[in-house]
Amino acid sequence: MILHIASFRWKDEVTDDDVAALTQALTDMAAQIPVLSSYVIGPNLHLRAGGADYGVAAIVADAAALDAYLDHPAHKAVYESHLGWMIAERAAVQLPIEEGHLR
Amino acid sequence: MILHIASFRWKDEVTDDDVAALTQALTDMAAQIPVLSSYVIGPNLHLRAGGADYGVAAIVADAAALDAYLDHPAHKAVYESHLGWMIAERAAVQLPIEEGHLR
Repeated sequence: MILHIASFRWKDEVTDDDVAALTQALTDMAAQIPVLSSYVIGPNLHLRAGGADYGVAAIVADAAALDAYLDHPAHKAVYESHLGWMIAERAAVQLPIEEGHLR
Repeated sequence: MILHIASFRWKDEVTDDDVAALTQALTDMAAQIPVLSSYVIGPNLHLRAGGADYGVAAIVADAAALDAYLDHPAHKAVYESHLGWMIAERAAVQLPIEEGHLR
């Protein structure tokens, strides 16, 4: 399985309402993309100093499923309507994980 | 529960051997830190264009456990001997997750 993690730092003009709208859009999107085994998103809790503004963690079966997720029209739509203009910086990584290893 | 995700972009001089040594050090460290419910680390698979060089995903029970992990002497030792000099850029986020939600 593949763990895809992404973190975002927002542009200064991004508001809490924008972030709430993004979270709703991503939640609605995830429901349309069955290859997503697990999907955790949200604003950074900032439990530690520094850090990015927002995080996504997605688990998919394999590289093909990752492409199916990231190239899905519903994902592209969220980029066009929300993420695209909000992002100042993005950092993403894919890691191999064994099923059930993250609990 | 808390999902802590971190991604790192390395300085140019970092070698594959340095990364392998870091991975071993983090693996040894995790064995000494019982608050880590789950711990997934490794170089980015680069299944998609761009992205950071390395990722960490850790699940802990709560904020206190996160501090116990990040402030643990064994974690600080890895920073001093490996991460500290390797990092060009770091992005970290903490997200609330329900037990078993990431599988």
